[in-house]
Amino acid sequence: MNPTSNITVASPNIKYTEDYIFSEYDYEETLVTKCERELVAKPYRTSLSIRTGRKVGKLGVMLVGWGGNNGSTFTAAVLANRHQLSWNTKNGHMNANWYGSITQASTVRLGLDENGGDVFVAMSKLLPMVHTDDLVIDGWDISPMNLAEAMGRAKVIDFDLQHKLRKEMQTMKPRPAIYDPDFIAANQIEQFSIILHVSYRFCEVAVGVHDTGDNLEKALRQNNSEISPSTIFALAAVDEGCCYINGSPQNTIVPGIVDRAEQTGVFVAGDDFKSGQTKLKSVLVDFLVSAGLKPVSIVSYNHLGNNDGKNLSAPRQFRSKEITKSNVVDDMVDSNRLLYKPGEKPDHVVVIKYVPYVGDSKRAMDEYTSEILLHGTNTIAVHNTCEDSLLAVPLILDLVLLADLFSRVSFRRDEAQDWSPMHTVMSSLAYLLKAPMVPGGAPVVNALFKQRACIENIMRACLALPPTHHMQLEHKVPFLMTELHTGAMFRSPPPAKKQKVTQKNGDQ
Amino acid sequence: MNPTSNITVASPNIKYTEDYIFSEYDYEETLVTKCERELVAKPYRTSLSIRTGRKVGKLGVMLVGWGGNNGSTFTAAVLANRHQLSWNTKNGHMNANWYGSITQASTVRLGLDENGGDVFVAMSKLLPMVHTDDLVIDGWDISPMNLAEAMGRAKVIDFDLQHKLRKEMQTMKPRPAIYDPDFIAANQIEQFSIILHVSYRFCEVAVGVHDTGDNLEKALRQNNSEISPSTIFALAAVDEGCCYINGSPQNTIVPGIVDRAEQTGVFVAGDDFKSGQTKLKSVLVDFLVSAGLKPVSIVSYNHLGNNDGKNLSAPRQFRSKEITKSNVVDDMVDSNRLLYKPGEKPDHVVVIKYVPYVGDSKRAMDEYTSEILLHGTNTIAVHNTCEDSLLAVPLILDLVLLADLFSRVSFRRDEAQDWSPMHTVMSSLAYLLKAPMVPGGAPVVNALFKQRACIENIMRACLALPPTHHMQLEHKVPFLMTELHTGAMFRSPPPAKKQKVTQKNGDQ
Amino acid sequence: MNPTSNITVASPNIKYTEDYIFSEYDYEETLVTKCERELVAKPYRTSLSIRTGRKVGKLGVMLVGWGGNNGSTFTAAVLANRHQLSWNTKNGHMNANWYGSITQASTVRLGLDENGGDVFVAMSKLLPMVHTDDLVIDGWDISPMNLAEAMGRAKVIDFDLQHKLRKEMQTMKPRPAIYDPDFIAANQIEQFSIILHVSYRFCEVAVGVHDTGDNLEKALRQNNSEISPSTIFALAAVDEGCCYINGSPQNTIVPGIVDRAEQTGVFVAGDDFKSGQTKLKSVLVDFLVSAGLKPVSIVSYNHLGNNDGKNLSAPRQFRSKEITKSNVVDDMVDSNRLLYKPGEKPDHVVVIKYVPYVGDSKRAMDEYTSEILLHGTNTIAVHNTCEDSLLAVPLILDLVLLADLFSRVSFRRDEAQDWSPMHTVMSSLAYLLKAPMVPGGAPVVNALFKQRACIENIMRACLALPPTHHMQLEHKVPFLMTELHTGAMFRSPPPAKKQKVTQKNGDQ
Amino acid sequence: MNPTSNITVASPNIKYTEDYIFSEYDYEETLVTKCERELVAKPYRTSLSIRTGRKVGKLGVMLVGWGGNNGSTFTAAVLANRHQLSWNTKNGHMNANWYGSITQASTVRLGLDENGGDVFVAMSKLLPMVHTDDLVIDGWDISPMNLAEAMGRAKVIDFDLQHKLRKEMQTMKPRPAIYDPDFIAANQIEQFSIILHVSYRFCEVAVGVHDTGDNLEKALRQNNSEISPSTIFALAAVDEGCCYINGSPQNTIVPGIVDRAEQTGVFVAGDDFKSGQTKLKSVLVDFLVSAGLKPVSIVSYNHLGNNDGKNLSAPRQFRSKEITKSNVVDDMVDSNRLLYKPGEKPDHVVVIKYVPYVGDSKRAMDEYTSEILLHGTNTIAVHNTCEDSLLAVPLILDLVLLADLFSRVSFRRDEAQDWSPMHTVMSSLAYLLKAPMVPGGAPVVNALFKQRACIENIMRACLALPPTHHMQLEHKVPFLMTELHTGAMFRSPPPAKKQKVTQKNGDQ
Repeated sequence: MNPTSNITVASPNIKYTEDYIFSEYDYEETLVTKCERELVAKPYRTSLSIRTGRKVGKLGVMLVGWGGNNGSTFTAAVLANRHQLSWNTKNGHMNANWYGSITQASTVRLGLDENGGDVFVAMSKLLPMVHTDDLVIDGWDISPMNLAEAMGRAKVIDFDLQHKLRKEMQTMKPRPAIYDPDFIAANQIEQFSIILHVSYRFCEVAVGVHDTGDNLEKALRQNNSEISPSTIFALAAVDEGCCYINGSPQNTIVPGIVDRAEQTGVFVAGDDFKSGQTKLKSVLVDFLVSAGLKPVSIVSYNHLGNNDGKNLSAPRQFRSKEITKSNVVDDMVDSNRLLYKPGEKPDHVVVIKYVPYVGDSKRAMDEYTSEILLHGTNTIAVHNTCEDSLLAVPLILDLVLLADLFSRVSFRRDEAQDWSPMHTVMSSLAYLLKAPMVPGGAPVVNALFKQRACIENIMRACLALPPTHHMQLEHKVPFLMTELHTGAMFRSPPPAKKQKVTQKNGDQ
Repeated sequence: MNPTSNITVASPNIKYTEDYIFSEYDYEETLVTKCERELVAKPYRTSLSIRTGRKVGKLGVMLVGWGGNNGSTFTAAVLANRHQLSWNTKNGHMNANWYGSITQASTVRLGLDENGGDVFVAMSKLLPMVHTDDLVIDGWDISPMNLAEAMGRAKVIDFDLQHKLRKEMQTMKPRPAIYDPDFIAANQIEQFSIILHVSYRFCEVAVGVHDTGDNLEKALRQNNSEISPSTIFALAAVDEGCCYINGSPQNTIVPGIVDRAEQTGVFVAGDDFKSGQTKLKSVLVDFLVSAGLKPVSIVSYNHLGNNDGKNLSAPRQFRSKEITKSNVVDDMVDSNRLLYKPGEKPDHVVVIKYVPYVGDSKRAMDEYTSEILLHGTNTIAVHNTCEDSLLAVPLILDLVLLADLFSRVSFRRDEAQDWSPMHTVMSSLAYLLKAPMVPGGAPVVNALFKQRACIENIMRACLALPPTHHMQLEHKVPFLMTELHTGAMFRSPPPAKKQKVTQKNGDQ
Repeated sequence: MNPTSNITVASPNIKYTEDYIFSEYDYEETLVTKCERELVAKPYRTSLSIRTGRKVGKLGVMLVGWGGNNGSTFTAAVLANRHQLSWNTKNGHMNANWYGSITQASTVRLGLDENGGDVFVAMSKLLPMVHTDDLVIDGWDISPMNLAEAMGRAKVIDFDLQHKLRKEMQTMKPRPAIYDPDFIAANQIEQFSIILHVSYRFCEVAVGVHDTGDNLEKALRQNNSEISPSTIFALAAVDEGCCYINGSPQNTIVPGIVDRAEQTGVFVAGDDFKSGQTKLKSVLVDFLVSAGLKPVSIVSYNHLGNNDGKNLSAPRQFRSKEITKSNVVDDMVDSNRLLYKPGEKPDHVVVIKYVPYVGDSKRAMDEYTSEILLHGTNTIAVHNTCEDSLLAVPLILDLVLLADLFSRVSFRRDEAQDWSPMHTVMSSLAYLLKAPMVPGGAPVVNALFKQRACIENIMRACLALPPTHHMQLEHKVPFLMTELHTGAMFRSPPPAKKQKVTQKNGDQ
Repeated sequence: MNPTSNITVASPNIKYTEDYIFSEYDYEETLVTKCERELVAKPYRTSLSIRTGRKVGKLGVMLVGWGGNNGSTFTAAVLANRHQLSWNTKNGHMNANWYGSITQASTVRLGLDENGGDVFVAMSKLLPMVHTDDLVIDGWDISPMNLAEAMGRAKVIDFDLQHKLRKEMQTMKPRPAIYDPDFIAANQIEQFSIILHVSYRFCEVAVGVHDTGDNLEKALRQNNSEISPSTIFALAAVDEGCCYINGSPQNTIVPGIVDRAEQTGVFVAGDDFKSGQTKLKSVLVDFLVSAGLKPVSIVSYNHLGNNDGKNLSAPRQFRSKEITKSNVVDDMVDSNRLLYKPGEKPDHVVVIKYVPYVGDSKRAMDEYTSEILLHGTNTIAVHNTCEDSLLAVPLILDLVLLADLFSRVSFRRDEAQDWSPMHTVMSSLAYLLKAPMVPGGAPVVNALFKQRACIENIMRACLALPPTHHMQLEHKVPFLMTELHTGAMFRSPPPAKKQKVTQKNGDQ
């Protein structure tokens, strides 16, 4: 089946209106309590109504550090796809694509067909999402360079494609950063709704000038004097009602920002795009630990030479980067106390270096050493050539589209209750972020496949579809196999919403 | 909480008897049909009763190729753990362990605690499993070498541990392979129930002698003359009522074996232990494709020098190995037709070479090249030093324990129906096998995290627990967060079995 | 000092005429004989006159397989350098260069300056060499594609540079291979003097048609019918008086070719350009063995996807390639019988695979395992991304220029003797060839630094300069250090030719 | 021929006495001067007499940091070889060896045999060297641990070999470092002659206590108060007449030490054993640059976890280590100004990290990026598992034996002159050291093959043998090939010492 076909759910638990999709959903979990030396697992079910807004139109994206490698490459990618450009390289004729974006270039399993085969659809087709052609890009930068120049400096886009984009991008000029008194002009705000911090350079450089603008002064006086320029951006964004996403490693979104965002009903997410080595690490360590192998030493070396990297070369910046990368295995280690004693962790080293020659072609050299059966050793050494901006840009797109989507999803228990959005701190975007922020008290999940399952199953819940469990009993239990074969399995109508637990309970 | 604590499920849908755990379970899936250019997703629910036998005792394990590296190392590991041996190496004092076994050294998420924290338990604690001390090992080999000698030749076990195991293992002698007229003596059969083919060497050598035994002659006459010796082993196992697991790459379990097994209600599983490079590949390609990156070239080089490897050096053997490794990405590629056109696949090369010096310390050198945004390129080069037998032996253990467990699980729709075991071809063991056999018509899943979710969620179903979905709504939806915080979430009683769909349907 | 300055030798032992450089040279070596259990080392000295032709003009280079990747890239490189082209890539503005050529882009130590500092000069400046602008390129190919098309297909040259070269290269059309009755037209022969076999494809394809041309028929009748097409090319080249260099792995230059070449005074050289992994291997193994470390396992995996690689995918072709690569460590192993017992060798595996996606960007993945002190182990794993044609083309240039140079060098003992050229089999080009051909009975040297020293010291001998010995006694022996400092060291006139040994002997 | 046979040189230029080998040697070099835009190369010849002491006996080796990994492993290796111990590992039965030592386990080409074949001999056989059984080891350490305990802590020596060495090594106790008032007791001095600083730990710890000993106080007063403890050791060694070799990265041998050593006629050498990654780097960069390829980015990551590494983890220590490693390519870059503009260097990063788990099994992960033809790129990524102490210990042995040897070599121009030893700063040991010290004004050579050629050719000079030039003209020039074949080449007597240049000159 065509993965880009439109999808309709046929179920008594779903209702489509012009503006919304309403889903009646039983959320099931298991409570575990300790009773002496035994664990008692008690499954429970929570009935929820979920409402997803269907209206999507243009979406404004404002980039803090627009003229950096990420900003200029994101702009080029949006334009190249919008105009369906093609260009030449020595390898032949190339066409624009969105490879690396989970919304545009990955699929999710929707269900099975009459023969029991899996059916996959584009993630972008599951629920209404903004079309990439409907993005309106703007932003700030301390450099006055126009976007064509910035693209040239970045050395990321193929020369012939640069040639085709140059004219349009020459007209795009970043706003002069926080020198500009009107942070976001009122008339644009209506349109714009998501602000991303996409460059390391921007704020570090602005530090010296953070006392010049009026609004900034005010913000500084209200907070303590140690407030970083990027935090001022976040604060302004929140005050303007714009979702703020921190793609850099700094701890920009401090508790005060979260408080303010919660009050104003604005979403924030962060930190640090998870594009390369960390993403791979969160896969490999999850794989090892869940296979019963014990990682004992994880050493990660990185070097890059792009303009962002140059600004990263300030030791303090590198340090914050190294820190966001260093907790990435904690949840996996914590999940398996058969391998690790309390407090025990693998040796874990993260190094980032600035090496001009490699430019945007970031190199990651990792070594994973694990103890295996009877104290044998398994060593995995990885050399990963990961184009920094080309891997980060699709994540920017996904963050924008998914943040917009999840901002349109609301929950309530029953009709008596008001619709509630998700928590201000959008932890469901964790798949895309190196050091995912979570609401206070919530566990941080870094394991990549779990993060992806989270996105998929929330989207399925919005459609009143059960979560994906991979059990395939219709291919394992003979009488189900027969029912599949004869079609009997599908003759029953779709399930009604499960009966309320409280009601049902009396019957038992 | 202690991951090795015992577990009880508190739910109206579960019933514990002395012999069984009975679970009432709603299996939920989604049927997708095509309607013009649209896909219609229709969720459905199947109510099942699941019965899991609780009685576990001694379990016989007979190894075809007992004297090979896998066989001798498996024996050594079982004994070292049974006697809780410790030994010295230059790195210090070592204790026996079962690292690399998912049943013994990995955990599964059971649910959440009152604070919303994840609770993980040892996989072996979820359902009643045979204790590793209760395994009784026996086997065949064409070499008359006792197991102590075999262990020495294998060069896998540390010298000082070999020293401590030698005396006991000297008394263990493989049966003289299929020369022996009584395939498995009757009195042992009662006890023994699982036969694993663990060595490449065994059968290749036996080819020349396959016409000497009476039983073998008979088998040969009943089938065609091209029948391989390993298939004769499989046939004999099935006829004796023993579960047969093929850990080698040959296509031993031919359709005739499956037919016979189906008739006699015996389980079979295969092929080829998934211990090293292929396991990693099934993780990496899944990761890449599901991230929207397009693997375009996958090159896998292996070399090893153990005794098994020597016998693999016959070109035909290597070829069968290369084949079992080459389909491992097909399901992942098929799952994302946004990246690949129909019929398009990545370039994929698998090479295996015999290099005596490296011995059992198998080396895998892989290169994954992927197309990323706007035809950029990401290259991941991996050098993996994977001790062949130390990684395979825990899989042998898991195959034995999980095959035994799943053989004790039965299903029925309602009381009118007889209890039905799973299908003869035990596809739920796919996590442990490089080229997982599935029943005819069933899709092959190679993606590792899906394979693991399958095992976990089937085990949860046996306990009437809902599948794991990673949504964590109690940490994302504000009113659920409040309910978690106040404990209100858990005050409702556990859910009853959901109402039957057929009944319910009339209400809608 | 400027490494590209012109050089004059000031010595009584050198004489410059308009046509020649004459050098009076004492060649010193050490004869070792065995006397009981003792070795007796007896230094001896051979006085030689060496004459090097100074006249260089245009040089014709005819390429067998002109339209292949090597052929089209060589042509493009010559033109790009001749016209001093520059072009754009995303990385900026590029200028033509000859990186990778030892004659054009490497230096040799000429001597020391008055302060004792080393003076290095471009290798091309040591002796008169053809200028790269004076090459005239022509060739054959079974494909009628013009060179611009061939360059496009090769996907080696940057797109913008291709654009600048296209017009000129469109006019270049390969001759229709051996279908053409006049192998090399007489009027061209005068000019052309070197023929290189640069493509794997050419001959393999021609195999089926080798019985069509008249000249070929004749050649076939004179030789046996198994003669390969490339050998026919070699034969024709020799008969036309052209030096023939075999850059492919086939054993083209069979003994009969060498005989004929010897009779006609023509030079031949081969086999197989040493551009990538083998070159590195000949460095690493030399390094390890000469450090007293014992390589015990050398595993070399290669894959490439260019058009040449495609034709290499015929198993027989790959095999010949694997063979030329497999002897490359023999001389180093033989040189250290402290590490290896007689007959003992490291495990050595070479694999080459065709992987279309990687194109000309050949990948080499090597693993070197060595035994170190007390049976410890050192493992070096290498991933080498080596652009196949960009590394091979400078070697083609060097082979052409050095073959031409060495063909102008002659030797004699004294005036009574005729000037003798070097042996027909030009083993002094070994640095550039994977499986260097040597005259019968001569030892094969693969160690790369020795091969380079050979070229340098022969060139020095042509200039009556002593060989490079790296002793630097003027920086180690105090009174010499003083003499250097005061300039006393250089005040003595240049050395006369050493006295004839035979004369001198009577004095002792 | 047996590489361990004894060697005699038969030449009029050599004279053997009971105590000495006298060699009459013509040292030839080339002076290069600049004349306008031309370089003038003027060969010159310096006649030298070289005297090598033949008397070798016991040699004392005192290790600063004896109880560290290098110190304990060196002691174990000397004893294991002396007693010809064998031991068991899981890989079989092992015998003691000296792999990794150039003197004990590598060969040098002596000359050619009557058939023109190369003859190689053990380097230790060229000139009289101390036998490894004649080493007497002693040393200091701030830890009172005996050597058996130290060996156990180091985790370097196989467990079974440790067992066999334990008893003897238990009796060996380091002197209590510089707390000990008599630095080296007088009666031992006669015997002991070489002191090596072999551990990073020793001095760093001692910093706090450097003001306790009398001699130390005096040294401190004579110098400034910033003098490091290791420098005090060096000073004491020099004052006692012991050769001092600095195997650590600190700049211990400050100018004042060199001055003192020069006055007292004592040898010093350093810094930092060149055992692993740096050694490989000095090979690879030499290879690349001399091939005309342009390294543009060199990134070196290291991690280790041994006790020495732990002490290295002080940032200042790591820094000194990173510095000694960072200049290693300078001489090679300087040698080829065709590739690099004046002042231009490759990007070069060196990182060292402490990762406890890997212990002594140091890991080096390097990436070399080079520009090739027409701005193509070659990338070499290396993962090197190099057992730190097992690679360093043979270098300690070589340093000891070669320092002793070269201390017995003297030079003079003629009989009127006194015999002069080599310069105090023994730069001829550069092959073994990461940051080779040289006398003031002398060029630093890091290229490994040049460093080795230096050692070989100096040893040949001591034997009146010409340097090795690799020209093999007897296999390239037809009439020489004939003379080789007929034996005519060797019938002339050995050459006399070349005539004195000054005498000869008049004849020309």
